[in-house]
Amino acid sequence: MSEAPGTPESDHPTAPLLQAAAGREPDRVPVWFMRQAGRSLPEYRRVREGISMLDSCARPELVTEITLQPVRRYDVDAAIFYSDIMVPLKAIGVDLDIVPGTGPVIAEPIRDERGLAQLRDVAEGDLDHITAAVQMLVAELGPVPLIGFCGAPFTLASYLVEGGPSKDYARTKAMMVGAPRLWQELMERLARITTAFLRTQVEAGARAAQLFDSWAGSLSVADYRASVMPYSAAVLGGIADLGVPRIHFGVGTGELLVSMVEAGADVIGVDWRIPLDVAAGRVRAAREDVGPVVVQGNLDPALLGAPWPVLAERVREVLRAGGRVPGHVFNLGHGVPPTADPDTLARVVELVHAEGRSLRSAGGVPAVSVS
Amino acid sequence: MSEAPGTPESDHPTAPLLQAAAGREPDRVPVWFMRQAGRSLPEYRRVREGISMLDSCARPELVTEITLQPVRRYDVDAAIFYSDIMVPLKAIGVDLDIVPGTGPVIAEPIRDERGLAQLRDVAEGDLDHITAAVQMLVAELGPVPLIGFCGAPFTLASYLVEGGPSKDYARTKAMMVGAPRLWQELMERLARITTAFLRTQVEAGARAAQLFDSWAGSLSVADYRASVMPYSAAVLGGIADLGVPRIHFGVGTGELLVSMVEAGADVIGVDWRIPLDVAAGRVRAAREDVGPVVVQGNLDPALLGAPWPVLAERVREVLRAGGRVPGHVFNLGHGVPPTADPDTLARVVELVHAEGRSLRSAGGVPAVSVS
Repeated sequence: MSEAPGTPESDHPTAPLLQAAAGREPDRVPVWFMRQAGRSLPEYRRVREGISMLDSCARPELVTEITLQPVRRYDVDAAIFYSDIMVPLKAIGVDLDIVPGTGPVIAEPIRDERGLAQLRDVAEGDLDHITAAVQMLVAELGPVPLIGFCGAPFTLASYLVEGGPSKDYARTKAMMVGAPRLWQELMERLARITTAFLRTQVEAGARAAQLFDSWAGSLSVADYRASVMPYSAAVLGGIADLGVPRIHFGVGTGELLVSMVEAGADVIGVDWRIPLDVAAGRVRAAREDVGPVVVQGNLDPALLGAPWPVLAERVREVLRAGGRVPGHVFNLGHGVPPTADPDTLARVVELVHAEGRSLRSAGGVPAVSVS
Repeated sequence: MSEAPGTPESDHPTAPLLQAAAGREPDRVPVWFMRQAGRSLPEYRRVREGISMLDSCARPELVTEITLQPVRRYDVDAAIFYSDIMVPLKAIGVDLDIVPGTGPVIAEPIRDERGLAQLRDVAEGDLDHITAAVQMLVAELGPVPLIGFCGAPFTLASYLVEGGPSKDYARTKAMMVGAPRLWQELMERLARITTAFLRTQVEAGARAAQLFDSWAGSLSVADYRASVMPYSAAVLGGIADLGVPRIHFGVGTGELLVSMVEAGADVIGVDWRIPLDVAAGRVRAAREDVGPVVVQGNLDPALLGAPWPVLAERVREVLRAGGRVPGHVFNLGHGVPPTADPDTLARVVELVHAEGRSLRSAGGVPAVSVS
C-alpha cells in the first residue's frame, strides 16, 4: 500500500505510526525518538550556530529544516515538531529565556495573583509562525506524519513558579497545596494556552500530538489526580475533536500511568523503568473500561553508549515487551542525549524495522487485522 | 519504661525506633529526618564556617556536635551519623572533593581496569576517626539510638564512573551493561568498602544502619536485580550478624521496593510517590515469605513550605497510611531541603508524637504486643 504525499488518510491511515496508535498492526514497528532533532546532530549544531533556542523556534524555515534533519538522516516513522515547551509562553509575551546549560529562566516567576497577569490567552496572530512552520513541514514530509509538540500545564507551571529548572519543585508544590485557588487559575490559564498551541499545530497539518509532562513523575498519585490531571485532561480533551492520536508522556511515571491514560491519551509514553507490557497491564488492571492500551517507548537512552551487541539485545527486549501489547511505537524512554552517536540511532531504526514485526509475532499478541 | 543511658538493650529494645523496626508497637511513632543535621540549621552553618565538607566529616568532635544538633533541637527518635557517602572512599585515599553547589568531584573517574586500583580494601586505622566519632556520640546520646550512615555501591559507583553528579548515569549504565566484568569488580570492591564502613559504625555503637542507594531509582527492575542488588545484598548481609535493623532507602524506587527488601532490609525507606501502605502491600504481594514489612517515610520534603494546616494534614495522611503497616518510622521521602524552616520540622515532630499512635489505632493494624 502506498499513497501520494499529502493524501488525507484520517479514515484509513497507512502510516505505521498512525496504525500502531490505533491498535492496528502496521507493516513495520514504527520508530521515532524524542529530541531526535537536536544537539546530537552535527547538522543541527551547524544551523543553530549564533542563533538562540527561542529565536530558532520562531523562524519557520529553520523549524522546518531542523525538524526534517533527523527524517533525512534516519528512516524514522514520524517527525516531531521542533519547538521548546516555553514557546507558547514566549508567544504571548512572557519574559523568559532559554539559557544554554541551564534551561528556561523566567524574568518574573509567578508566585501570586499579580504574576498571573503575564498569562493572557493566545490571541489571533500569536501563533502564525507555528502555523507557517507546520504547513511548510507537512508539504515537505509527504507520507511521514508530523507529531505536534507541547509541554503540559504542570511542567510549564513548574518553570514559571520556580523561575527555572528545579530539583524538588518545592515552590510549585507549596503553591499547589497551599494556595489552591491561585494554582487553579494558573493551571486553567496554562491549559487554555497549551490547548491553543496544540490545536494550531494539528489544524495546520500535524497528524498526531504529544503532550510532554516531563516532571509529573515528581508527584504522588494523589497530588497528580487532584491538582494536575484535570488540566492535562482539559488539553487532551480540547483537541479530541481533531481526531488525531494523542500521546501522553512523562518521566518516572510508573505510578501515574493509569491516570495519564485516564486523562485522555490514546498512546501512553513509558520511560525505561518498567517493561512496556507491565505498563500496559497496569493500566488494564486498573481500568478495564479502557480500550486497547497502546504504548510508546522505552529504551533507556543512557544505554545508547553501550557496545552494539548489548544495545541491540536491549532493543530486541523492548520490541518483545512491546509485542505483547496491542500497539507499540518504538522510542527511547526519554529524549536523545546530546552525546548520542547518530550512527547508533540509525542502527536502532534499522533493527526495529528489520526485526520488529517478527519479534511482535513471537510475543503472540492477537493483532487487530487491518481491514 | 526508662533505661539508663548506655544500657545494652538488644534483646528488649525500648527505643521507639528499634521497636518499630522490629514490627512492635512503641509508645510513640518514632520520627527522624534524613539530613536532619545539615544546612537547614543555623547552628550547623555556624560550625561549618570555613571548614570543607570532607574535613568536617574527618573531625570526631565536629561530627559529634553536628550529629547532636538536631537531637538537641528536635525531639527526634534517632540521630543519623553525620557523614557523606564519599567518606569511606576518601578514607582509603581516593582523590575526590565535595564542591559546594556541585557535589562530589572525582579527580580520576573510574573507566577501566587501571582506575579500579584506586579502590583498595579498608585497612586497619583507615576508619579510626569514624570509630572515635561514633563512640563519642553514643556516650552523649544516651537512650536515643544512633543510625549508621552509608552510601550503597551503585550510588557510589555512579559518582566514581561519571566523575561527579549526573542526570542520566550514561557512563555508569554503559559500563554496567557493556563491561560486566569491570562492573562486577568495581561493585565488589565498593561492597567490601561500604560493608567495612557500616560495620565500623555499628561495632562502635550505632544501633541501626541505613544504606542510601539514592540513585538506584534510575534503573529498571531487571538491571537493578542483575547488576546492583547482589552488591547491596552483600553489604546488608555483611552486617546481618551484628543484629541491628537495616534500613534500605532510595528515591523513585516504587518499582524496586520488592527487590530492595529482598536484598536484606528490615525496614524499607519509601519516597513520597506512593502511600506507605501501598508500598508495603506491593512487597507482601510479591514476596509472601517476607515477615512483617516495616516502612520508613514518606512526607514529600517539598511540602515543608506549605502553610501549616495543609502540611499538618499531610503529616496525618502519612501517619494513617503508616498505621496500616506493621511498623512505621516517620521520615521525609528524601532529605531535609537546605531551605526548610527548623521550626516547621519541630512542629512535625510534635504532631507525629502527639497524634501518631491514635492515628495508627484508627488505621486498625493488628499490633504485635510487646511482651
